[in-house]
This record gives sequence, C-alpha cells and structure tokens, in this order.
Amino acid sequence: EVRFDPKEHQHLRYNPLRDTWVLVSAHRMKRPWAGQVEKPPEEHTPRYDPRNPLCPGNTRANGEVNSDYDSTFLFENDFPALQPDAPDPDSDQHPLFQCKAARGVCKVMCFHPWSDVTLSLMKKQEVVKVIDKWAELVEELGTTYLWVQIFENKGAMMGCSNPHPHCQVWASNFLPNEPALSDRCQRAYYQKHGEPLLLQYAKQEAEKKERVVVETSDWLAVVPYWATWPYQTLLLPRRHVLRISDLTTEEREGLADIMKRLLTKYDNLFEISFPYSMGWHGAPTGPHLNKDNSHWQLHAHYYPPLLRSATVKKFMVGYEMLAQEQRDLTPEQAAENLQNLPEEHYKTREN
Amino acid sequence: EVRFDPKEHQHLRYNPLRDTWVLVSAHRMKRPWAGQVEKPPEEHTPRYDPRNPLCPGNTRANGEVNSDYDSTFLFENDFPALQPDAPDPDSDQHPLFQCKAARGVCKVMCFHPWSDVTLSLMKKQEVVKVIDKWAELVEELGTTYLWVQIFENKGAMMGCSNPHPHCQVWASNFLPNEPALSDRCQRAYYQKHGEPLLLQYAKQEAEKKERVVVETSDWLAVVPYWATWPYQTLLLPRRHVLRISDLTTEEREGLADIMKRLLTKYDNLFEISFPYSMGWHGAPTGPHLNKDNSHWQLHAHYYPPLLRSATVKKFMVGYEMLAQEQRDLTPEQAAENLQNLPEEHYKTREN
Ligand SMILES: O=P(O)(O)O[C@H]1O[C@H](CO)[C@@H](O)[C@H](O)[C@H]1O
Ligand SMILES: O=P(O)(O)O[C@H]1O[C@H](CO)[C@@H](O)[C@H](O)[C@H]1O
Repeated sequence: EVRFDPKEHQHLRYNPLRDTWVLVSAHRMKRPWAGQVEKPPEEHTPRYDPRNPLCPGNTRANGEVNSDYDSTFLFENDFPALQPDAPDPDSDQHPLFQCKAARGVCKVMCFHPWSDVTLSLMKKQEVVKVIDKWAELVEELGTTYLWVQIFENKGAMMGCSNPHPHCQVWASNFLPNEPALSDRCQRAYYQKHGEPLLLQYAKQEAEKKERVVVETSDWLAVVPYWATWPYQTLLLPRRHVLRISDLTTEEREGLADIMKRLLTKYDNLFEISFPYSMGWHGAPTGPHLNKDNSHWQLHAHYYPPLLRSATVKKFMVGYEMLAQEQRDLTPEQAAENLQNLPEEHYKTREN
Repeated sequence: EVRFDPKEHQHLRYNPLRDTWVLVSAHRMKRPWAGQVEKPPEEHTPRYDPRNPLCPGNTRANGEVNSDYDSTFLFENDFPALQPDAPDPDSDQHPLFQCKAARGVCKVMCFHPWSDVTLSLMKKQEVVKVIDKWAELVEELGTTYLWVQIFENKGAMMGCSNPHPHCQVWASNFLPNEPALSDRCQRAYYQKHGEPLLLQYAKQEAEKKERVVVETSDWLAVVPYWATWPYQTLLLPRRHVLRISDLTTEEREGLADIMKRLLTKYDNLFEISFPYSMGWHGAPTGPHLNKDNSHWQLHAHYYPPLLRSATVKKFMVGYEMLAQEQRDLTPEQAAENLQNLPEEHYKTREN
C-alpha cells in the first residue's frame, strides 16, 4: 500500500480564516512551462525622477505640489474608488438587484523620499516610521470608518503603476467581504474553543517550526498551512493584539525587524524586487470600537504571485476562479525554500 | 441635493450567487493608466505546428501520439492536478491543520484540428460538436464524480500555455468551494422564494433588457448586475435546466449560436482574440444525481481580464484580494459597449 506523501499526492487543506479549501497538487511542479513569461521587475529605478508624481517636490495630476518630505508622505488618492459624500442609491429593490451606499476615503502613503528603495532596503528606523503612520491612520480614520484597509501593491505585475515605494489606505463605512468572512470565522472559532483562532495557530506553528520563515521574540512569519499563493505568508504578533494601533514601541521595532527580514528573503528568492500584494487585518473600527472583539488577532497577509522564477507566476484562472484554488508546491516546501535563503539582501551583499 | 448616478457615485452591488458585494466605482475610469501593459495576444498562430503537442498526429510530452482527429479530441492531462488513486492523508487532526483526500481526473479537450481558430470563428455545427462532447463528459464522469468542472483558459494572459483551441475538464470526488457556495446560495433562495434564483433572474433581465448582450429564443447572455470583471458575462438557458447533459438538440444549436455571437462581440471589442476564463456550473453529480436539485440552474460564467484596451487589464490585487472586489465601469456601461458592437467577426469582415 502506498503511503501518503503530501509532495506526491494531491489533497485538500482547510483555510480556517475563510472557511474554504485549497487543492494542493505538488507533483504538478514537474510539468514544463511553455506559457506566458512576465517582464522581470525593473531593477534600475532612478532615486529621483522629475516626472514621477510621488517624488518629493513634484506636482501631481490634480496640480498639487508634494512637500519636500524626508520620511513618510501622505496624500489623498487623486482617483479615489471611495469618496466621503456619494448620495444614497434608490431603495425599494428586488432581492436580485440589491445595491447600497458606499462611502469612504482613499489615501496614498509614500514610505520614503527615494524611489530606488523598498521596505527591505530601508533602515529599520525608517520602517518604524511607516508602522507608526499606519497605526496613526487606523486610529484616526477608525474613529469614523468601520474598516480601514492598509495595503501595498508592489511591482507592475501586481497592478502597481508607480515604482516609488508606497502603500494605500482605503477606509469605508462598510465591512468588506474579506474581513467580514474573517470576522465570522474567528468569532465562530473563539466561541467554540475559547481562544482566538490565530493565537492558537501562532503557538502551534512556533512549536512545529516547519512552516516558520522568520521569527522574533514578539512576531512570527509563516507560510500558512492553507497557503494559496506559492510563497504566501502570514505575519502576526505572538501576543493577543487587536489592532496595529495597539502595538507597543518595542513591538513596532520588532515588526520593522521581521518585515525587513521577511522581505529580504522574498527579494533573495529569485534575486529581484519581489512583487506582492499585502495588507493588514485587525479588529473592525468605527461603531465596533465599543464592541467585544476578543476573537480578533492582528495579522498581515502577503500574497506574492511568482511560482517558478522571476518571470513565471502562478495563474489563478479557470479552475481556481470557477471551482477552487490550487497550488503547485506544498506550503512546507515553500517555507523550506525561504528558510534556506540568506538574511542579507542580494543588493547589499559583498561579492 | 445631488441625485444618485451609478456612473458617478460609487456604490455596492450584491452578488446573490456568492453572497458577497462588489464595489462599483465607475468614476475611476477617468484616471490615466501608467502601469503594466500586457503583450497583445498573438494574432498569427499557424494552422498546424509540428511542435505543438495539441495538433493532430503530433506526439505529446508522455510519448503518446494524437490521433489524426478532424473534430474534437479528448485526452488525459499529462500533468493532472487530480489523480484517481491518491492515498488518504493521515487523520486525527487539529482543527487548524485539517486536510482531506482529493481524488479525480483531469482531461483536455481540443475543440478543432486547427490551431488558428477559436469558438467564435468555428462553424456553428463544429461548436455543436463541442457542446455534445461537454454533455457526454458530464454524463460519463458524473456517474462517479461529485463535480465535473468544464473550463476554458483562453489566451496567454489567462495562463493558457497553448494557443490551440481547447478546454479542460477536472472531475473531483469533492464539491469545490465555488460551486459549494453557489449551491448554498441557490438553495437558500429557492427555499425562500419558491423559484430558482437564476430562473427569476433570467426573466427579469430579459424584461429589463439593459444588461442583455445577446439572446436567442432559448438563451440569454447578460453582464450580470453584480459583475466583477469589467466585461464579465453570464450565459444561461431561459428554461429550467439542471445540467448541460439535459439540453435538447435544439437548445444545443441555440447555445452554439449564442456562444458564437457573444464571443464574436468579445473579439470585436478590442479587435483581438479576447482572453478569458470561462466555465460551466450545473447541479452536482455523483451521489447528488438522486437528490433534489431543483434550486439549480445551468449557467456559464465568462471572466475576461481586459479593462481599457487589448493591453490593459483590470488588476484584482491589493484591495480586491484583501478587502473586496472593485470595478471601474458599471455593468450597464459594459453591456452597452458590447451591445453596440457588430455581430460579424472583425477577422472575416469585408473591408
Ligand atoms: O493546466 P494549464 O492550462 O497548463 O494551467 C493553467 O490552468 C490551471 C487551471 O486553471 C491553473 O492551475 C494553472 O495555474 C494555469 O497555468
Ligand atoms: O490605485 P492603483 O494602485 O492605481 O490601482 C491598483 O490597485 C487597486 C486596488 O487594489 C486596484 O483596484 C487596481 O485595479 C490596481 O491597478
């Protein structure tokens, strides 16, 4: 009788944060790839480009001039998907034609005055400033808005239209689908097991070690057992923390440290500036600030598209869109590949 | 007071098949695009390529030789994500580390012996043969498997690694996430309203007309009210039909006709061979064949990635992955753009 080997035998794994399953078919990596090859990320961005609307002192599309900033820099998205003052749509609706109002704000935050750095290459204290700003934004926008989504699209492959290091913050008067699902799953788990889902999970992973990519005394970055994207990771504190604004000074230093280390490994994997989308999930805000959110645990998701090399990504297409997500290497293989990489960035390494 | 205008004011629309919401922010189309530009689809595929493993008479990766087929051609995927004989994973699992067995088969089906045609350019009777084969496969694989997913990834942009016209069929012993969700939503609707969700929907859309792209006496193709992808469509029969294998001869002719017309409009939109992922959803099979599936209605989803032109797609990235899907034109605008296109294919049009 053949013994089960996760690298050889396809199987399903459960994602407890989304109540879905992922199909793991690692034997599929053996197939040759004759499909689309991506442009490799641009490696020679100039530090300052007079035409780049995100650089210090430059003029943006709407005529506004950026300050001569030397740290982070925040401004309103010039083409916001959410605006604070949209009128209500007409009501009296058929159950199959339901719509409702959406209000909010969209902000852009530059991480650094230079276009040729990324979080992995910035100084730790510069990354701390980014974290402080994230915390401040969640605090400020969270007084009004129910959900404050901080996210970074990094690299042209991830729809990022500007190479300058930056993230976005979209705050809304509604709880979007993904956090709504995560809220429901974490709540149900807490009710059943009496402990936050992700706190139990972090403990288990810290013990098992096989999926941990980097860790500090306060933080853990793992390829989750249910990872969908090839090199997806989950970054979370070991302590029970509801929101990024609740992090202590020491925890922010630790976060800057683990982010730099994780992102350096990502860049080292294929020796390119690694593309990804990432974002923070924490307890909802606005009217939820006074409610019990003990089931929540702050965490960040990193979703990088690359699978085989700097130019071959995983396509989440036909079967994935219509049936179920599928991955081509086990999360343990992905974690091992990342673990084995040096913590010194390939760009600063001495030869 | 400002009156609500869906083209100017962002709002949320409800997707009753997935119980989620989409953020519609059509005013965003005004922003300029400075981001990634895709390679336009290859327009000059040779009719026969001796190195293409999908062409008649050629040898595939595993050494098998294709028959000299002159219609459709079916074979086992040489690198299947699902195999019939994978052993069971070890049980006794922590709730956060759950896995289970996945078994199935993966097949590839060529639509036509020529590499330089697509469904839009094939003769109607050739498309009927494809439909007959789909029906046959659902019938055959459905005796054993719970779910038979027919899907087509078209174009390199959608991860398709071979330009020869073909689709895939992955059958599994489990109900994947997407059909599981759709099953749940259709069932709940049926219980509450006493009529299948998609049957009511088709009737409403046929009356309203504003989102209908093409129709026949038996079929309807609409940009759904809750469309996520810019030019997403939903194709469905007007009669209550559970599975593709239940279609009458006449309905199959009608389907071939409407598919050709819809896909011709797609190709005409940017005058390229339009990329998409599409797939069929019908009532589950295997052990579900004897159960009551009256809540189900057969339908196909088309998910095309392009937004602005042949080379600029919609990126479903940061906010979409972490919070909620967002679209940049209203479904009504998308439908109108498609409605206004000729039904004659740009490649066969006389100049
Ligand atoms: O089997 P193919 O066409 O080579 O592969 C393509 O479709 C599959 C099913 O949607 C995906 O899992 C792959 O990522 C994609 O490249
Ligand atoms: O606002 P950006 O960076 O120009 O736009 C990018 O991120 C947005 C939020 O994830 C997406 O909706 C866009 O499709 C993408 O191109």
